[in-house]
Amino acid sequence: MKILVIGASGAVGSAVASALSERHEVLSASRQQGDFRVDITDDDSVRALFDAVGPLDAIVSTTGNLFFGAVATMQPADFNVGLQNKLLGQVRLALLGQHALRDGGSITLTSGIVADEPILQGANATAVNASIEGFVRAAAIELPRGLRINAVSPTLLTESKDVYGPFFPGFESVAAARVALAYVRSIEGAQTGRVYRVWQ
Amino acid sequence: MKILVIGASGAVGSAVASALSERHEVLSASRQQGDFRVDITDDDSVRALFDAVGPLDAIVSTTGNLFFGAVATMQPADFNVGLQNKLLGQVRLALLGQHALRDGGSITLTSGIVADEPILQGANATAVNASIEGFVRAAAIELPRGLRINAVSPTLLTESKDVYGPFFPGFESVAAARVALAYVRSIEGAQTGRVYRVWQ
Ligand SMILES: NC(=O)c1ccc[n+]([C@@H]2O[C@H](COP(=O)([O-])OP(=O)(O)OC[C@H]3O[C@@H](n4cnc5c(N)ncnc54)[C@H](OP(=O)(O)O)[C@@H]3O)[C@@H](O)[C@H]2O)c1
Ligand SMILES: NC(=O)c1ccc[n+]([C@@H]2O[C@H](COP(=O)([O-])OP(=O)(O)OC[C@H]3O[C@@H](n4cnc5c(N)ncnc54)[C@H](OP(=O)(O)O)[C@@H]3O)[C@@H](O)[C@H]2O)c1
Repeated sequence: MKILVIGASGAVGSAVASALSERHEVLSASRQQGDFRVDITDDDSVRALFDAVGPLDAIVSTTGNLFFGAVATMQPADFNVGLQNKLLGQVRLALLGQHALRDGGSITLTSGIVADEPILQGANATAVNASIEGFVRAAAIELPRGLRINAVSPTLLTESKDVYGPFFPGFESVAAARVALAYVRSIEGAQTGRVYRVWQ
Repeated sequence: MKILVIGASGAVGSAVASALSERHEVLSASRQQGDFRVDITDDDSVRALFDAVGPLDAIVSTTGNLFFGAVATMQPADFNVGLQNKLLGQVRLALLGQHALRDGGSITLTSGIVADEPILQGANATAVNASIEGFVRAAAIELPRGLRINAVSPTLLTESKDVYGPFFPGFESVAAARVALAYVRSIEGAQTGRVYRVWQ
């Protein structure tokens, strides 16, 4: 399969790209690294990406920023950060990318455990991750030509404990390589509208 | 209790205001009707509303627009309609309104059955409603002073069948007066972080 991974240089994305490379042609994209430059917050940039890569069998998004901060002091503009970046950014990849997929192709987006397990300062993350999963459930019933769409919801990565660990007291982490397996299941399996939760 | 209902002139809101009026002081607000003018998409307008109404025991939102349309032709800007209006608009009421609440006060937002039961052309609605429910789950663990936050998720209202019926083939509708009971439960009960689903 010819697979495009947006965010392939990140903690999640590099593990996913590595797992997929064993059996597939993997193209990587992000703002600053990999085979293609793209900014998921910009329609023209995302359109140009799909024009440049040509027909695909799978689109994988392992990217997106959130706002972390207390509800007590959160402003609407803070909350909009996650809406415009991780949520609309990934939905943009799906909406514009669907037309670049060959029949039977798939889209796999990334949510996160905070959708189901709220944490302090994580209200934007819970809302955004839950929304991504909602979009996936709904888009799945509409996609034509055997196209599929799923989400992977990782818990804290072991590799990201230094960065995000303080937000996740008592949460068990999982290795990025194990999270990557869920993306492989989404791409090589036949399910659609699924959320693959990786946290047990 | 002194209760502010934003969207009180609508199909849901008028039933909610009517049910609450039996035992409470109800203030109504929307862009064009009721006791106060407000636009939920505008920070300054929402701030001015809360300054004008003074201390409250409950804030109820029964408002918010969504984008309805096929995923196949949906553009990112279409998807952003629901993010900016129903989602961020209601989150804005919660974020700015929390400071206007007396100790033990509550916030009740409105999601909808499409969060759990996707319909054709409803991907924006599913994503937005799921996100509102996520925000409620997460904000509930942070709110201080006994403040509470819940969502009500109505199915299609019998009173709205003419407008939205074609989107909901085979869905049973419920009377607005029955939906209103869930808002009363949210306001007069003690639960927080709950979604009251009204569709059986
Ligand atoms: N790490 C975890 O523990 C964890 C757990 C659960 C969920 N997640 C989710 O997994 C996703 C990836 O997280 P991560 O920790 O792997 O992030 P990361 O290490 O910071 O990597 C982010 C990746 O996205 C790219 N990127 C950032 N902004 C972009 C933009 N506007 N347009 C295009 N590409 C962009 C980055 O490359 P450039 O800088 O070159 O653009 C990089 O490749 C996020 O949605 C996160 O919420 C992570
Ligand atoms: N009706 C249903 O069957 C149903 C089912 C499930 C969920 N819902 C949800 O329930 C909520 C209300 O639906 P509805 O059918 O009652 O809507 P509606 O009859 O159209 O009423 C909308 C209310 O919100 C006000 N409003 C609209 N835009 C506003 C803005 N920008 N700022 C402030 N107020 C605004 C309107 O008054 P002005 O025009 O004066 O601003 C009106 O009071 C929506 O979130 C909807 O998705 C409805």
